[in-house]
Amino acid sequence: MGPGAGATETDLQNAEQLGELISQQNWFLLTGGRNCGVMEAASQGAKKANGFVIGIMPTNDNNSISEAVDIAIFTDMGNARNNINILSSDVVVACGMGAGTASEVALALKANKNVILLNTWEESKVFFQSLSKDHVFLATSPQDAIHLIHKIIKNESF
Amino acid sequence: MGPGAGATETDLQNAEQLGELISQQNWFLLTGGRNCGVMEAASQGAKKANGFVIGIMPTNDNNSISEAVDIAIFTDMGNARNNINILSSDVVVACGMGAGTASEVALALKANKNVILLNTWEESKVFFQSLSKDHVFLATSPQDAIHLIHKIIKNESF
Amino acid sequence: MGPGAGATETDLQNAEQLGELISQQNWFLLTGGRNCGVMEAASQGAKKANGFVIGIMPTNDNNSISEAVDIAIFTDMGNARNNINILSSDVVVACGMGAGTASEVALALKANKNVILLNTWEESKVFFQSLSKDHVFLATSPQDAIHLIHKIIKNESF
Amino acid sequence: MGPGAGATETDLQNAEQLGELISQQNWFLLTGGRNCGVMEAASQGAKKANGFVIGIMPTNDNNSISEAVDIAIFTDMGNARNNINILSSDVVVACGMGAGTASEVALALKANKNVILLNTWEESKVFFQSLSKDHVFLATSPQDAIHLIHKIIKNESF
Repeated sequence: MGPGAGATETDLQNAEQLGELISQQNWFLLTGGRNCGVMEAASQGAKKANGFVIGIMPTNDNNSISEAVDIAIFTDMGNARNNINILSSDVVVACGMGAGTASEVALALKANKNVILLNTWEESKVFFQSLSKDHVFLATSPQDAIHLIHKIIKNESF
Repeated sequence: MGPGAGATETDLQNAEQLGELISQQNWFLLTGGRNCGVMEAASQGAKKANGFVIGIMPTNDNNSISEAVDIAIFTDMGNARNNINILSSDVVVACGMGAGTASEVALALKANKNVILLNTWEESKVFFQSLSKDHVFLATSPQDAIHLIHKIIKNESF
Repeated sequence: MGPGAGATETDLQNAEQLGELISQQNWFLLTGGRNCGVMEAASQGAKKANGFVIGIMPTNDNNSISEAVDIAIFTDMGNARNNINILSSDVVVACGMGAGTASEVALALKANKNVILLNTWEESKVFFQSLSKDHVFLATSPQDAIHLIHKIIKNESF
Repeated sequence: MGPGAGATETDLQNAEQLGELISQQNWFLLTGGRNCGVMEAASQGAKKANGFVIGIMPTNDNNSISEAVDIAIFTDMGNARNNINILSSDVVVACGMGAGTASEVALALKANKNVILLNTWEESKVFFQSLSKDHVFLATSPQDAIHLIHKIIKNESF
């Protein structure tokens, strides 16, 4: 998860590398499906490693879909689809931060999902860790995020 | 909006007073509809002033509904209904903080809604103001929240 | 419930009269909220009797809202909001028929709600009664629909 | 799409064969994801041909999921997820009929999707064809449904 139009250059680089690494683990990548920002970068990264990308679209048509999405789920429910994004993810990685991403992190914590914050700003780390001690993890790099996901999955024994 | 089971004593007092003040302005109160925490306290407060309460339920039945709700909308969509809560509100007041409330504040900012944070902790003020300079307001009391709502409505000329 | 753009002149007359009669019973009228077809006619009818109208909008803004709606719930979820319409209604009256209305009748039956079909065409009566023997009622006029609602409410002891 | 608990033996046989044939075309199968009725039979049929199955769950957890689902999307929105099912399908095949299936057919027609009715009862054929002349097709067997899908896809040039 991560910002669309508001993504920084670092967010995009992280997202692309993360998408690639996720595919190299033979995991599915689930994103918000649109052709911009972190969603697009992560999806393109997954494609570089021949990965499989699920896009949960806020719309009901193909207009703003990333070309790297293999399966599009059309919800036509705007940002309410953010709850589907996090319920359908085994682990949530927030790559950057914005209002939409913040809603996904909060909904994930509400649903007792584990969330990894990747290179986000200090205030958001402090805030989300004050919301949940046990379910918020901090990653310093895409590789570190992958390492954390392995640890989380092992503990949860999916 | 505000925590259910996790509400503090101060949150509950603020919520009850806020509900009463909202009704005294002849405004409708919209809450998450359940019979606990800030939702229940605000709804009961509204009833003290003969107000009108709309409850947007996460469930599909009456089981956990506040007795102070006049109109219940049954969404049966769990926390995805948080997006409906904020889209259907002219101004959002967050009374306390928790994961669910944080998702509502973030979804409200994503939808360019004005949000008033009432007596929440420091980290959440700093975080949400970093997400949006223009749409986050800080209230020190229920009366101050009402004062801010009047100013917001005047500027927006609803 | 009933067609928007596809409503017939009879549908509109029935809907307006039904809205007026519903308000005269001191019941709330819940519609799909838009300013066209059966929704608009029923809402305007309710206003003639100083009734109270709840509109469950498929959109996230005021653009297509009926002026007769007292409380608008903005779902921003397109036709998925049809499920909210029927879950939030004590009794569903289908005034005319179309694809959207058919989805509401079917979702209502799926949720074990009672549905009254008012002056719809023969094929739809036969079809919906084949789906549910116990929950589909046929009304010959708006007055007859009101009579049936009273009987249903009495039996269900809301 | 098709009934869960209410599926007939013929529905189940059709669904299993249809799932297998869909996978043999190298198409993805999308179902409602649960481990009962037509959903389960179609998903199991797809697995026999090493197909790929997407399950759009009404719930937020694994409890009632078919073992043949490869990707589960957890909506936690009950029957409102029926709208996502049809928006995310290129062509909808209704295998049998019931209230839930009827809602999916109606929502599909509302969204101008093409729907194939497979071996459903006479009243539903007549009703849905009266709702839409152009988008309702009748199949006499799973093979015939596949044949119709090919024709529809060719005309729509996806």
